[in-house]
Amino acid sequence: MMKYFSTRTTVRSYTSKSIDPDLLNSMLEAAAHAPTTGGMQLYSVIVTEDDEMKQRLMPCHFNQPMVASAPVVLTFCADFNRFVKWCELRDAKPGFDNLQSLMSAVLDVTIFAQQFNTIAEMQGLGCCYIGTTTYNPQEIAQVLHLPPLVMPVITLTVGYPDPQNPPTPTERLPLQAIVHHETYKDYTHQDIENHYIPKEELEVNKGFVEENHKQTLAQVFTDVRYPKAVNEEFSKRLVDFIVQSGYKLPE
Amino acid sequence: MMKYFSTRTTVRSYTSKSIDPDLLNSMLEAAAHAPTTGGMQLYSVIVTEDDEMKQRLMPCHFNQPMVASAPVVLTFCADFNRFVKWCELRDAKPGFDNLQSLMSAVLDVTIFAQQFNTIAEMQGLGCCYIGTTTYNPQEIAQVLHLPPLVMPVITLTVGYPDPQNPPTPTERLPLQAIVHHETYKDYTHQDIENHYIPKEELEVNKGFVEENHKQTLAQVFTDVRYPKAVNEEFSKRLVDFIVQSGYKLPE
Repeated sequence: MMKYFSTRTTVRSYTSKSIDPDLLNSMLEAAAHAPTTGGMQLYSVIVTEDDEMKQRLMPCHFNQPMVASAPVVLTFCADFNRFVKWCELRDAKPGFDNLQSLMSAVLDVTIFAQQFNTIAEMQGLGCCYIGTTTYNPQEIAQVLHLPPLVMPVITLTVGYPDPQNPPTPTERLPLQAIVHHETYKDYTHQDIENHYIPKEELEVNKGFVEENHKQTLAQVFTDVRYPKAVNEEFSKRLVDFIVQSGYKLPE
Repeated sequence: MMKYFSTRTTVRSYTSKSIDPDLLNSMLEAAAHAPTTGGMQLYSVIVTEDDEMKQRLMPCHFNQPMVASAPVVLTFCADFNRFVKWCELRDAKPGFDNLQSLMSAVLDVTIFAQQFNTIAEMQGLGCCYIGTTTYNPQEIAQVLHLPPLVMPVITLTVGYPDPQNPPTPTERLPLQAIVHHETYKDYTHQDIENHYIPKEELEVNKGFVEENHKQTLAQVFTDVRYPKAVNEEFSKRLVDFIVQSGYKLPE
């Protein structure tokens, strides 16, 4: 059991085999038993199987090829729309148009998505988190017809792993890099060296540094993958979307 | 396998049996292989086992008894502190003091926490998400000595389930309430009735309505559990904490 968890990997390459609708439903149903804030289930999931819809989602995700090539694309959304509609029908005054409520919904949908990811992997499927869902929420909302109070948070591509393109194993920091006992012990320079050198010395990471003409692996993250100006531009779009979607920010 | 996922429940009552440190470490290590944004592992976890520290965390969580009675309390934090320290040591200019980066870290830590939750449950342990971690982040940060760029997001209490106090099964909406195909189909009044009536008719939920002297179950959520004014007050505190912690909001 533990072995599955410590050897699982992201799968970006799929065979053309489709996913049986009953299997997909039973996995989603099981995943919905994951923990959820106050039993509220503040989420929805949009299942994309139609090729034209995948093509429309592609640019929202910077044309990452898995969005078109996976048999199923799932867009997991933080959703207060359904819950608020229920409250209104039941003579209850909802007060969920705020950041703390949105945070609950974001945690709810993330827990649900990850539970689905685990279940799917255990059924022999492979999944890939597309990490760009909160970059272009407005465009995704348009393609998927999301109403107010519904925010796309996570996209998972799902399919049967292509044996011709086996995934690389995940590399992770040593446990002591992420665990603190009783209080947070801030990292000394020596701690950082100890925790990150093994990662930096992996051939695959040395390759990234070289390909990108950088001096260090950290520079690949700061200059190429997640540059400050890009992060800030997409932060602005995220906040704009949150406000347009009907959530108020504190003054 | 699927049966575990569709029958799991939250466990709020634990025996006094402690958790073997090797087991705890191996579960955390396995959980760290969960998906993570760009391989960055933007999280830390603080392990609380000391009784005095549990007592100090209690008021941060509105004195929910599991925080004192569980053998282990885990506070999962979104953490850019470690990653930024690494960048600075490697001549790389970090640009992660923004909301989109924080969102990545919140998703990362939630995925990690949920993977731990699943692993622990599969090992026969029981867990409870304490849903108040983002309500009092400032107080939790003080108790746990969290540095800037580290935000507490999720607290899990963990222990062996008390057989004297078996948990109640989770009740969930029907699958069609949460799944949409190709585009979001907004809910009609009749849809809401169909999806929520089975939940409202459960004896346990009828009991909540009566105990709280309300007319509907929805009013228990809006008036008692998550009232608007409380949500707004804690939204303000959350934003204050985010800003104090070193993240900038877009203008």
